[in-house]
Amino acid sequence: MWAMQAIGYVRSPYRETRQVPKGLGAKHEAEGILEIRAEFEDGLQDIEGFSHLFVIWAFDRAEGYSLVGTPPSDDRPHGVFATRSPRRPNPIGLTVVELVSREGRMLRVRGIDMLDETPILDIKPYLSSVAPERLRRGWLEEAEGRAAGKR
Amino acid sequence: MWAMQAIGYVRSPYRETRQVPKGLGAKHEAEGILEIRAEFEDGLQDIEGFSHLFVIWAFDRAEGYSLVGTPPSDDRPHGVFATRSPRRPNPIGLTVVELVSREGRMLRVRGIDMLDETPILDIKPYLSSVAPERLRRGWLEEAEGRAAGKR
Repeated sequence: MWAMQAIGYVRSPYRETRQVPKGLGAKHEAEGILEIRAEFEDGLQDIEGFSHLFVIWAFDRAEGYSLVGTPPSDDRPHGVFATRSPRRPNPIGLTVVELVSREGRMLRVRGIDMLDETPILDIKPYLSSVAPERLRRGWLEEAEGRAAGKR
Repeated sequence: MWAMQAIGYVRSPYRETRQVPKGLGAKHEAEGILEIRAEFEDGLQDIEGFSHLFVIWAFDRAEGYSLVGTPPSDDRPHGVFATRSPRRPNPIGLTVVELVSREGRMLRVRGIDMLDETPILDIKPYLSSVAPERLRRGWLEEAEGRAAGKR
């Protein structure tokens, strides 16, 4: 077992889960702040050179977990490790954000889908992408296809 | 504080840190197995439809942390949140792997950079990439530029 602490908190326009865009075609354009605790500010040195960051955070308002569930983007159940469900064995969230600017220990970012006051566990530089032509997105592509067929 | 448990373990050809390719131009082509614990196998339903996965894991052999350090890919120090250093406030690792095949609770994957027996904390589907033309890679690009200039 590993004990994880908050290195900072998310400042987000979303205060409740239902405010966060979900489901097929949801866009995450919201801006917010990653406020890093003063004791960890030195760890941000040179982060402003990166355009995108991985933010690893805690689903602190999720309770328990379900191994199988039906996500907002589909009407069929899938395993938790094939979804971004908050109800996971370890309550870890992962979001790729665009770094807009840094002021001291405040990182202004775009693309957040976390609630206000979400605890941040780690930040890492986003270094490379998988080429789009090599990416398969499983049940999500199928759900998108069915949704397109209904339109 | 959040307590995290292992949902499984990595089976890797790397038994020691020095065996893992590091530094500029390091390629991670190694194949290995993500062996998920039997009690979590149901959470893998439909994961085989995804070509790439995020693996979130624990640096279980790292001790303590440094807020600033010099990575293998540069001769200059950078903040820990701008690097993939194992010595982080929360010992969390993140690797994007390609899913080659699934047999029950064993996921054969390509692109691992973890040591054998590394505890896995979470697995998520890789759903989208940042367009390469929008990606800036900060100090790493500068280090690559200096290395190219020396050749």
